[in-house]
Amino acid sequence: MNFVGSHILSISQFDRGDVEELFQVADEMEPYAHREKHTRVLDGAIMGNLFFEPSTRTRVSFGCAFNLLGGHVRETTDIKASAITKGESLYDTARVISGYSDIIVMRHPVAGSVEEFSRASRVPVVNAGDGPSEHPSQALLDLYTIKKELGIGNDFGGIRIAMVGDLKYGRTVHSLCKLLNLYSNITFTLISPKELCMPEEIVESLKQSGHTVIETENMEDGLKDNDTVYLTRIQEERFEDRNEADIYRGRFRLNQAIYTSNCKPNTVIMHPLPRDSRAEANELDNDLNQHPNLAIFRQTDNGVLIRMALFALTLGVKDQVHKSAVEVNWYTEKRFK
Amino acid sequence: MNFVGSHILSISQFDRGDVEELFQVADEMEPYAHREKHTRVLDGAIMGNLFFEPSTRTRVSFGCAFNLLGGHVRETTDIKASAITKGESLYDTARVISGYSDIIVMRHPVAGSVEEFSRASRVPVVNAGDGPSEHPSQALLDLYTIKKELGIGNDFGGIRIAMVGDLKYGRTVHSLCKLLNLYSNITFTLISPKELCMPEEIVESLKQSGHTVIETENMEDGLKDNDTVYLTRIQEERFEDRNEADIYRGRFRLNQAIYTSNCKPNTVIMHPLPRDSRAEANELDNDLNQHPNLAIFRQTDNGVLIRMALFALTLGVKDQVHKSAVEVNWYTEKRFK
Amino acid sequence: MNFVGSHILSISQFDRGDVEELFQVADEMEPYAHREKHTRVLDGAIMGNLFFEPSTRTRVSFGCAFNLLGGHVRETTDIKASAITKGESLYDTARVISGYSDIIVMRHPVAGSVEEFSRASRVPVVNAGDGPSEHPSQALLDLYTIKKELGIGNDFGGIRIAMVGDLKYGRTVHSLCKLLNLYSNITFTLISPKELCMPEEIVESLKQSGHTVIETENMEDGLKDNDTVYLTRIQEERFEDRNEADIYRGRFRLNQAIYTSNCKPNTVIMHPLPRDSRAEANELDNDLNQHPNLAIFRQTDNGVLIRMALFALTLGVKDQVHKSAVEVNWYTEKRFK
Repeated sequence: MNFVGSHILSISQFDRGDVEELFQVADEMEPYAHREKHTRVLDGAIMGNLFFEPSTRTRVSFGCAFNLLGGHVRETTDIKASAITKGESLYDTARVISGYSDIIVMRHPVAGSVEEFSRASRVPVVNAGDGPSEHPSQALLDLYTIKKELGIGNDFGGIRIAMVGDLKYGRTVHSLCKLLNLYSNITFTLISPKELCMPEEIVESLKQSGHTVIETENMEDGLKDNDTVYLTRIQEERFEDRNEADIYRGRFRLNQAIYTSNCKPNTVIMHPLPRDSRAEANELDNDLNQHPNLAIFRQTDNGVLIRMALFALTLGVKDQVHKSAVEVNWYTEKRFK
Repeated sequence: MNFVGSHILSISQFDRGDVEELFQVADEMEPYAHREKHTRVLDGAIMGNLFFEPSTRTRVSFGCAFNLLGGHVRETTDIKASAITKGESLYDTARVISGYSDIIVMRHPVAGSVEEFSRASRVPVVNAGDGPSEHPSQALLDLYTIKKELGIGNDFGGIRIAMVGDLKYGRTVHSLCKLLNLYSNITFTLISPKELCMPEEIVESLKQSGHTVIETENMEDGLKDNDTVYLTRIQEERFEDRNEADIYRGRFRLNQAIYTSNCKPNTVIMHPLPRDSRAEANELDNDLNQHPNLAIFRQTDNGVLIRMALFALTLGVKDQVHKSAVEVNWYTEKRFK
Repeated sequence: MNFVGSHILSISQFDRGDVEELFQVADEMEPYAHREKHTRVLDGAIMGNLFFEPSTRTRVSFGCAFNLLGGHVRETTDIKASAITKGESLYDTARVISGYSDIIVMRHPVAGSVEEFSRASRVPVVNAGDGPSEHPSQALLDLYTIKKELGIGNDFGGIRIAMVGDLKYGRTVHSLCKLLNLYSNITFTLISPKELCMPEEIVESLKQSGHTVIETENMEDGLKDNDTVYLTRIQEERFEDRNEADIYRGRFRLNQAIYTSNCKPNTVIMHPLPRDSRAEANELDNDLNQHPNLAIFRQTDNGVLIRMALFALTLGVKDQVHKSAVEVNWYTEKRFK
């Protein structure tokens, strides 16, 4: 893919070369995200952060990434209350808002809506989640985290990953599977209640690509021999009957004792966040908060790098970032170390 | 009017000279709005974007215009939930917020409230709509669009314009009539259901100024021989009984077939947006979306130019904009061409 | 206290030396807040403005203060609707959001929550109000206002202050008492309905420090011989039964006539705002709006100075502010004179 001027709508746009290019630019963003330097490469540019449903983490992460490149962010989180209720089409919204911005980040509860919006937009659009469908920057930051945590190069072939929890509704595990499908010889251990198992077409596609797929309801067994264990929250908001979610909440949990008994010593622990820390859920226990292999907060930090890289690539400034770099002169501590 | 330090509350403040000056500055803003250059003339300035009712388009347009001049924007869209409910007067809100900003943009559902606020404000206030009353930057961008689309100079004398739809509640057509009343010999064709016709005092004032005013319920007749046709949405939110709006919605529609049969070849199509694209309304059909004379998205683009010009004039920096201009170095395509 | 890198959670962190240092830096911020110069000392820095309950004034004041130092602001006001409802802990929110920001300003309805958040944050956190508990920047700006209005140095010993209204639920008067307790020989006249009197432990602590404390329900008597009278609103939102608030609203009012009859000529009038200007409340009448000793809007202006100083100190840039100073070139009038 030629990134410059492209919409970023789906991980299916990415081939291995694209991923490699993106991750290299993300690496180069680190001194800026970690406040060692700052750059003004996008000074004067405007990002439209268009959230048709709330998502604090994703919204702020994208906004921060754009600010770190020196640009302005204009946000909209109240859009339901506005023109849309007066019968405005996505086509019109896209034509109008794209006249105000250099790039648009959009989240919408309806699958396909971001793609529909992008067809009418006059500027690049980045999909920040369209309902149960796609959230490509999340899958990319997950893969980038695996790379950094495992200390591997650009080939993910041969890794062993367990995915745990609500694999039916969990958008992030779907996307991560599709992305990992670009590589060879991966072992997927899918741990979930039968009713919340990974959709069959994803399992089939992994198998057809020659990967090993193990499906189990036995967590202790499933946790063994992985490089990475990726936990997920029960996506209660996607259940037709929310009470049904209560049945599954709390069924698969990772805590210090379970980790020590079942996981290989350096197994990386990931979670797309938010994790549900209520007593009845608690799929990833706080007693692991100080564990050196708990990667969940490095994972969100990596989101900033990936989003900066997406902006730098789609707006065609990746080679100019460093030209306007200056040292940071305010207190930063070494908080990313 | 001396723009510097002035509040912009009503189009009645504007004479022909003011309009001419504003449009000239708007022309000069084009390279910045179209991302050929960027300027930092308002670097360090703060605009307070104060929305007491939601309006994504207007809010983002103003915010973007201020960013394009290099300034910061501090937004408030949650004001109902806040100090106002604790009995704070507009006077106090104005005294306080004007201590935080260099200029304030304000929308409020109650007619006259922005003017009341401005009397207590220590900084210039721009009215972004006060209920059914005024929305001066909209009227100015409409007139500016007519000028550019028709390729005329600073005299609008002799043009022929049709206004279609809800002329009773449509604030934009009221304001546009008042603004056009500064010029001579204009032909207004007012097409609406009788119950939603243009208020009598506006019609009278146009006639007294020597303009030709034709009122009709016959759309085919009314469309003939105009330079511009300006469509409007049924303003259902202003009806006391919203069901009544259903009676009128969909009665006057423009689409490709009607346009071709009735309009002069180069008739410019305008609409203040949002247009209601639901099947039962659809006052301006999507089958005209590719039509070269459909000006509705150039119209919203022009809003950015007008708002930049208002900021540059009221803050007294119009001659300094170009001094800090630099080339834009990120991907922009030729999306405004 | 060493400000650099510190959380600002409570006024109990401050000793007299800290207050003196803060006020000196606040004085140095004046040319920037008053738009004579602007600085870019925090160009590239990001402040996370995290409001779990609405507060337009406080939120915009902090945001403006950060912009005036040249930094970006990423705001969150919709947080209730978001990850928190999915069971995310404050710990997780803090770990995540602190990866996106250089400093966080946080308001939350629950006492202690900001402190809890700060323990997990990787960047300094400023408490912008945690329910009935603390709001340190408000107390500091109140004290700073007393200093400037009375034209005194760094010793507040010997001043005479009356506090009027809801002294039970009014967080600002509690904090101001605690802060004044750093100094000696102050006379506090506490005017309130008995049911809304100052909490006993605060009164006791003032008396033990040797201050004079007069408690009264007689406003006329209480107003005599003060340097400053500090009025407060009935905090109806903190009453278990909101109707109960109606009993007290309007009981203690200051207006022109009462001021002239009872107060010393130059008594400074303060109020933390918002004041309740509904007829049934009106604890501080609008007929004093032009009075030269009405300090309430200078008080909110001072809030910007104090917040700029807090940012400059905690981020360690107080000595660099002036290095990047340039003259302001846009219209500013002399609105702060």
